[in-house]
Amino acid sequence: MSTKTVAFFGLGNMGRPMALNLSKAGFRVVGYDVSAACLDAAKALGLEVAKNPLVAVESADFVFSMLPASQHVLDLYGGQNQELLKGIPKQALIVDSSTISPQAAKEVSMMAESQGKAMIDAPVSGGTGGAQAGTLTFMVGGTPQDFERSKALLAPMGKNFFYAGASGSGQIAKVCNNMLLAIHMIGTAEALALGKNLGMDPKVLSEIMSKSSGRNWSLEVYNPYPGVQAGVPASKNYEGGFMVDLMTKDLGLAIEAGLQSQTSLPLGSVARSLYQTLRSAGLGKKDFSVVQTFLNSVS
Amino acid sequence: MSTKTVAFFGLGNMGRPMALNLSKAGFRVVGYDVSAACLDAAKALGLEVAKNPLVAVESADFVFSMLPASQHVLDLYGGQNQELLKGIPKQALIVDSSTISPQAAKEVSMMAESQGKAMIDAPVSGGTGGAQAGTLTFMVGGTPQDFERSKALLAPMGKNFFYAGASGSGQIAKVCNNMLLAIHMIGTAEALALGKNLGMDPKVLSEIMSKSSGRNWSLEVYNPYPGVQAGVPASKNYEGGFMVDLMTKDLGLAIEAGLQSQTSLPLGSVARSLYQTLRSAGLGKKDFSVVQTFLNSVS
Amino acid sequence: MSTKTVAFFGLGNMGRPMALNLSKAGFRVVGYDVSAACLDAAKALGLEVAKNPLVAVESADFVFSMLPASQHVLDLYGGQNQELLKGIPKQALIVDSSTISPQAAKEVSMMAESQGKAMIDAPVSGGTGGAQAGTLTFMVGGTPQDFERSKALLAPMGKNFFYAGASGSGQIAKVCNNMLLAIHMIGTAEALALGKNLGMDPKVLSEIMSKSSGRNWSLEVYNPYPGVQAGVPASKNYEGGFMVDLMTKDLGLAIEAGLQSQTSLPLGSVARSLYQTLRSAGLGKKDFSVVQTFLNSVS
Amino acid sequence: MSTKTVAFFGLGNMGRPMALNLSKAGFRVVGYDVSAACLDAAKALGLEVAKNPLVAVESADFVFSMLPASQHVLDLYGGQNQELLKGIPKQALIVDSSTISPQAAKEVSMMAESQGKAMIDAPVSGGTGGAQAGTLTFMVGGTPQDFERSKALLAPMGKNFFYAGASGSGQIAKVCNNMLLAIHMIGTAEALALGKNLGMDPKVLSEIMSKSSGRNWSLEVYNPYPGVQAGVPASKNYEGGFMVDLMTKDLGLAIEAGLQSQTSLPLGSVARSLYQTLRSAGLGKKDFSVVQTFLNSVS
Repeated sequence: MSTKTVAFFGLGNMGRPMALNLSKAGFRVVGYDVSAACLDAAKALGLEVAKNPLVAVESADFVFSMLPASQHVLDLYGGQNQELLKGIPKQALIVDSSTISPQAAKEVSMMAESQGKAMIDAPVSGGTGGAQAGTLTFMVGGTPQDFERSKALLAPMGKNFFYAGASGSGQIAKVCNNMLLAIHMIGTAEALALGKNLGMDPKVLSEIMSKSSGRNWSLEVYNPYPGVQAGVPASKNYEGGFMVDLMTKDLGLAIEAGLQSQTSLPLGSVARSLYQTLRSAGLGKKDFSVVQTFLNSVS
Repeated sequence: MSTKTVAFFGLGNMGRPMALNLSKAGFRVVGYDVSAACLDAAKALGLEVAKNPLVAVESADFVFSMLPASQHVLDLYGGQNQELLKGIPKQALIVDSSTISPQAAKEVSMMAESQGKAMIDAPVSGGTGGAQAGTLTFMVGGTPQDFERSKALLAPMGKNFFYAGASGSGQIAKVCNNMLLAIHMIGTAEALALGKNLGMDPKVLSEIMSKSSGRNWSLEVYNPYPGVQAGVPASKNYEGGFMVDLMTKDLGLAIEAGLQSQTSLPLGSVARSLYQTLRSAGLGKKDFSVVQTFLNSVS
Repeated sequence: MSTKTVAFFGLGNMGRPMALNLSKAGFRVVGYDVSAACLDAAKALGLEVAKNPLVAVESADFVFSMLPASQHVLDLYGGQNQELLKGIPKQALIVDSSTISPQAAKEVSMMAESQGKAMIDAPVSGGTGGAQAGTLTFMVGGTPQDFERSKALLAPMGKNFFYAGASGSGQIAKVCNNMLLAIHMIGTAEALALGKNLGMDPKVLSEIMSKSSGRNWSLEVYNPYPGVQAGVPASKNYEGGFMVDLMTKDLGLAIEAGLQSQTSLPLGSVARSLYQTLRSAGLGKKDFSVVQTFLNSVS
Repeated sequence: MSTKTVAFFGLGNMGRPMALNLSKAGFRVVGYDVSAACLDAAKALGLEVAKNPLVAVESADFVFSMLPASQHVLDLYGGQNQELLKGIPKQALIVDSSTISPQAAKEVSMMAESQGKAMIDAPVSGGTGGAQAGTLTFMVGGTPQDFERSKALLAPMGKNFFYAGASGSGQIAKVCNNMLLAIHMIGTAEALALGKNLGMDPKVLSEIMSKSSGRNWSLEVYNPYPGVQAGVPASKNYEGGFMVDLMTKDLGLAIEAGLQSQTSLPLGSVARSLYQTLRSAGLGKKDFSVVQTFLNSVS
């Protein structure tokens, strides 16, 4: 089989290790980033970089993007009268793994289609740890055929691959999942704070609820109470893990999607307010389980 | 082994099948209820009933109560200058399985202690179905010794037995668990409503989130979206299951405990408001997953 | 003084009576609307209408717009490479009174500026009643000079004119005011429901709180409890007034602005969820004080 | 007119200046407090104190109490088999001005009635400043006749006297008013934070909203944004005023009353969570308008 070429946009903390995993798996990776620092860091890892986006896609079999927010993705593919889209070879598959709004994902995918190019949205979960280990989860929106085509590309970067439905569905699945995650994280922290304040051992309470109907991912594998589980951020002063800043961003996407689709999100809205408050209080770089510290009683 | 006698207070929808399971297991059950209808229903099942509470406890090895709310339990054991407590034989073990406030549980247990009697709180989860099948979960607060002693009594009625800690801890565990359950139920319903309104299939979304960090009991085994899972209340017009009325009561206990212990419960409070609103809207007898219907968008 | 010409875009339920008031005050009004029905209704009132937007602005001293949402305003002024803006005479003042997002208002105003045209945002409060009576309140964002120039135009349509600051500030003031209005409306309804459920007369409670620190506009002049005040929507089966649909839209703008500016809006978010729920429950055409009916207890 | 005697219970920060105002107005005040320090402070002001409660009420025309919480009032009047109530002269009027739950107020008043004694609940607003100046507001529950009788007593201590209805209504009015106050305070802070973050001057925004439908007591006379109004706590580093601790207590009474009366309090519940969080964050002694500082965006 001949070597496949990937034009790779976005060489930040997530993108760089993902590009490296592709390269190790035998892909020719041609990287690009608007930041000179990111380009240099990529070169230092031995990755090939292009002078400009158009050069990067010239002979691409896959175009892959991993950018910070909706506007960056809209600019990359839609800017300059969609110059980049026009330059992408007809047979290439475009995969955007940035976390952006479902609406922006649909918009970009329609632009691609109008230029006769195939595109899927494939946001990930798993963080920088998963990016380095090549164990990310991908949630994919697009045609079933393009989902199948993408697997060769995604395999070196991830472990789980979900087909979510038509264009935008990958982003929908991610935004819904992360909102639900925020809600049961806060709920778990409230339950543990309440139990503790009433005199109960958070560890015993966690064990009982884990075997009862209160059971959820936050409680079982990412317990927010310090000392209940070894190795989780809560037991490391809330360092590492999934930052409050990022959860606040994802909750913003959920609320935005709720406005657009006229969905009432009573707990999701309060969750977003709480995480925004945590950011404002200077805790943006802490793991999102740090919400536990906000719920403790007067000592 | 000689036949053990249980004085059984509260022969309603929960208590009656539990008493029957004890009787079938070889206990002598002497029942009592303030309601004549409940007494008659118990007699119709072949259960022995007592003329009054004092007679019921006369030769009891165990005293068991399954009553609607804190006040009933306080009245039963504390009323008439604790006349009943005084009448209970020294060596008997008192087990209260009513769902009441942790504070009331501690109060009653201190009364028992002051009369030289041993008492544990042992609220259950599992509903009328679990009561009939003898598969309830018991969460127990009291001394470890009394927890061990109680197992002979609880075994015919339940399947899981958790030791939660000192007096009141059973109630604390239950109130915390059920608050967390309400929160992830509403959160799950919000996530599914949002996904659906954005165009995604609730079944596919449920599958993806069940394998991701949004994972929780409500999503996995009690899905609130009609048609996603067979057999759950959501697929039976929200009939059966755990009633909104009962969840509203349990959330009331959680909020009350939060006031008393000065715990901030942002999501628990909104959950309680929502369930109270569902009650007021006439949905009190529906399963608590009916909250899904409140979150759908304008069609 | 010579007759001034106003190009008037948006001849719906708000725009039509406003245009009529301008006409009665001696302005030459040249109307336009994308809806044929609105154009016909305007003609039936004796208003002049133009064949197309460009014709309407040809000899305008003022350009005035009263459209449903952000996208309509962006399309009118920004569409077709800003064709309309280019066609507006240099010396004309553009006034947009639509309720749109502060961000969209700033964007449109920058477009106008880039074409060398002066523009202000001037959203109103007062509803269709105020539009007919010519008693609207205008909140204006733009330069102080343009605010002064606008007064000749706005005078026949309104009674109060507030200068809020630079471009977009009119919309900021409106969105903040209406979010606060929604919050104290719901808060007032909660207080009255609580008092009533505890046994107190809502009228007496309203009188006491109106003279105490609970005092607010909803309580004093727009009481949500039926029968407390004569003439308000609550005493007319919640007919008339300010529709739930419109309040939901305005709260959506507030939440959107909160996301964009990273502001935590705990009560505003819950208010938006509540109004979205009321819409979903089919109450979108009722006055927004109908939230009272959602807070009553089980009877 | 002969000198009237008042048995005065509770000589703390509120009670002491109130007792002094009664004394200055010509009443014979016989004070009592369980705290030796409070008794000493009262004596230092020249007030007469009694050896024990029974002695204090011996020849009382009025019995007045100003205690911290429900339990203190229940203990004073209900303790020791209602010994104190029995000792109060038949013709005396009992006035409780403590802020307690409506339920506790009704309970104590029924005890008094069962002993043939007349009692009203008369909680105040106005704080220690109003207590010193004799300008408190009293909200009274009881018979209209007893309300009239109480005026002679209350006049030296207050300025406004509201009749709220039957026993407990004074407490209902206060708890409802203060919950509404908390809600529009937070709402005002949210609106000002949003406007500021979007680029608007909080002072200009406050002026516009004060003349619009967002108008409320917090905005107009107790503005939470530093520097908008002179003399308010927000302009004095949130010192003085009405402490977060006290607002948290009052919101606790509101939530408790909502649980008991099955009232849904969506905003009141979030308000209580927020104030509990402020307490936990160490801001309990700050004025309750300090909530403004929690809503500011990342700088």
